[in-house]
Amino acid sequence: MKIGVLGIGITKFGERWDQGLRDLLLDAQLRALNDSKIDSKQIDAIYTGNMIGGIASGQLQIGSMATENLNLHIPSIRVEGACASGSIALREGINAIESGQAEIVMVNGVEKMTDVSTEQITTALMGAGDEEIEGFAGLTFPGLYALLAKAYIHEYDLSRETLAEVSVKNHFHGARNSYAQFQSEITIDTVINSTMVANPLTLFDCSPITDGAASIIIANEKIAKKMNSEVYITASALATDTLSLAKRESLLELKAGRIAAENAYKQAGITSKEINFAEVHDCFSIAEIYAVEALGLAKRGEAGKLYDSKQTYFDGDKPINTSGGLKACGHPVAATGIKQAVEAVTQLRGEGGKRQVPNALTGVTYNVGGSGATACVHVFKKMK
Amino acid sequence: MKIGVLGIGITKFGERWDQGLRDLLLDAQLRALNDSKIDSKQIDAIYTGNMIGGIASGQLQIGSMATENLNLHIPSIRVEGACASGSIALREGINAIESGQAEIVMVNGVEKMTDVSTEQITTALMGAGDEEIEGFAGLTFPGLYALLAKAYIHEYDLSRETLAEVSVKNHFHGARNSYAQFQSEITIDTVINSTMVANPLTLFDCSPITDGAASIIIANEKIAKKMNSEVYITASALATDTLSLAKRESLLELKAGRIAAENAYKQAGITSKEINFAEVHDCFSIAEIYAVEALGLAKRGEAGKLYDSKQTYFDGDKPINTSGGLKACGHPVAATGIKQAVEAVTQLRGEGGKRQVPNALTGVTYNVGGSGATACVHVFKKMK
Repeated sequence: MKIGVLGIGITKFGERWDQGLRDLLLDAQLRALNDSKIDSKQIDAIYTGNMIGGIASGQLQIGSMATENLNLHIPSIRVEGACASGSIALREGINAIESGQAEIVMVNGVEKMTDVSTEQITTALMGAGDEEIEGFAGLTFPGLYALLAKAYIHEYDLSRETLAEVSVKNHFHGARNSYAQFQSEITIDTVINSTMVANPLTLFDCSPITDGAASIIIANEKIAKKMNSEVYITASALATDTLSLAKRESLLELKAGRIAAENAYKQAGITSKEINFAEVHDCFSIAEIYAVEALGLAKRGEAGKLYDSKQTYFDGDKPINTSGGLKACGHPVAATGIKQAVEAVTQLRGEGGKRQVPNALTGVTYNVGGSGATACVHVFKKMK
Repeated sequence: MKIGVLGIGITKFGERWDQGLRDLLLDAQLRALNDSKIDSKQIDAIYTGNMIGGIASGQLQIGSMATENLNLHIPSIRVEGACASGSIALREGINAIESGQAEIVMVNGVEKMTDVSTEQITTALMGAGDEEIEGFAGLTFPGLYALLAKAYIHEYDLSRETLAEVSVKNHFHGARNSYAQFQSEITIDTVINSTMVANPLTLFDCSPITDGAASIIIANEKIAKKMNSEVYITASALATDTLSLAKRESLLELKAGRIAAENAYKQAGITSKEINFAEVHDCFSIAEIYAVEALGLAKRGEAGKLYDSKQTYFDGDKPINTSGGLKACGHPVAATGIKQAVEAVTQLRGEGGKRQVPNALTGVTYNVGGSGATACVHVFKKMK
């Protein structure tokens, strides 16, 4: 697979009282168009990831909103796989190119989360779990990841400090990213002493509620070469698992994540050793630990070592979440998968500024839906 | 394009108090598997259309539910384009095959609508319109189609009796379809004298609220030939328009429908004259009038003639909605696009029983999202 990246665009992430769902989407679309230097009329199809527009904004059929924004009548679809909606939209965009149905595709992720109450959002997000088995039993989303954290800590003796270091590192990166929701550094103590949300996860183990959108414009190899694309997508893999934790074979790994990573590496013809940086799904601090192991960047039960030895900073051996991750950059759920792609492209172009990974040639994005029911992995490569 | 149909499955449509979202989906999946005579392990990817699961059942990420039902970990995605969700899922399934990522794909449409109040469903369905422009102004979905009906009747003098005949014909077909929600015939008077919903549309001009699911298993040509498929999909086209009616160029046609039909005919290498029957989107009686014209089965403003001359019955010159359409068969919104495909395959296999179209070789499905913001057209052909 060799899909070129023509352009990227992203809005400021945060509590965007100034913009609604449509405005955020348009903002990201126009930024990506501007970056790509193509005209909107050159786009053959649009895919938009969105998770809770129907619940939080009363708006479905957002595919049509995306074409209406650009005054187009081309094929345009909304796809949803909970918090993995952005990356699966990217995967569908790639499919459209590989099938020959499209040459140039725009892929968006957008979420407007702050227009309803926190209670409504928490209920909506639980739609990513299993409503019958988990929702009716009273579980919330932090509760699901707290169960995973308990299982992991019990089995592998992960220390509280090591887990907290995930958030500390992500805030360190967020402080170097102008579109991040939180641009301030924190300490281990900040995390440990913050309000308990779902034992053992405290407030600073949890990603925030965020408004935001991101867009990427991709093209087949021929057009990408003509447009002098620097960055290509060389793998796109998706895998699924049961909605509920109760039905999983094991709580000590996210199986869908592992399968997606293995398939992506096979497609790209690489091993995890060649990865220079990864943008992963840290909806909760513990999720990043699972992500690092699913990607094969650490052995099962040993991800903590990377954090104890500070290798996951942008200038370390295994830079993780240079954007600030979901924790500090923010988590407008369906926008996250595309934000990860935007960060990967930014790094590979050498435009990472104060958080630039040295000599970045290969980057991976790892996006998860729910508590691991969907996982989508993309490989990005600099080719110039 | 030549995509083979390996199998179809459909649940009884109606108020299914006996089954939840997961049960309905599983039922359709198993029926399609049984019909296809393949093993679930042969499926490479699943696409599932669903519109209001997040709102009516608190359940998102239904892609994972579809793989969990079959104990698989393969790529599985939910797609949504309001009431066109089913057919765009089919289009994505076709893309997956044409891109070479999959050889055999299962496509589902599922909707569980009766677990919440009618008011909640009406609000949820309005997510298919433009929430900011239409929803906040107090418009409901019947209201949107009533506006279209008013415009059409004003311009083309469509009589009340002719409009009512759409529903009469669809009930006639529904009475010959064992999975239809309503299996009783009605008269013109039934329609005209029923309760006013949104002037000029009365209760019997409107499709009902329905639970149901449908599945189709498709494959590339090589596998389809090996499996002795009788029916192939030769075109899949999607187009979009503005979410709100207010921004449309004209209210006298559904532009997205016309574009999708034109593109589909081009792909299939046919003209509208070669179409032996069509399954179209009659969420309201007036919608079928627009559909027939978008498909080029009648000139603009002249669809009524087909109804006055009774040509749209299963044994007429232009059979429309032999399943009973959305009106009589029922409209579990995202299942409708796949139900249309199931009916097309049923007719082309010659399994239509009391509603069998004589000498059916080419059938078209026409599925609409919202008041025409999405339109998706597929062409099915018998090849044996």
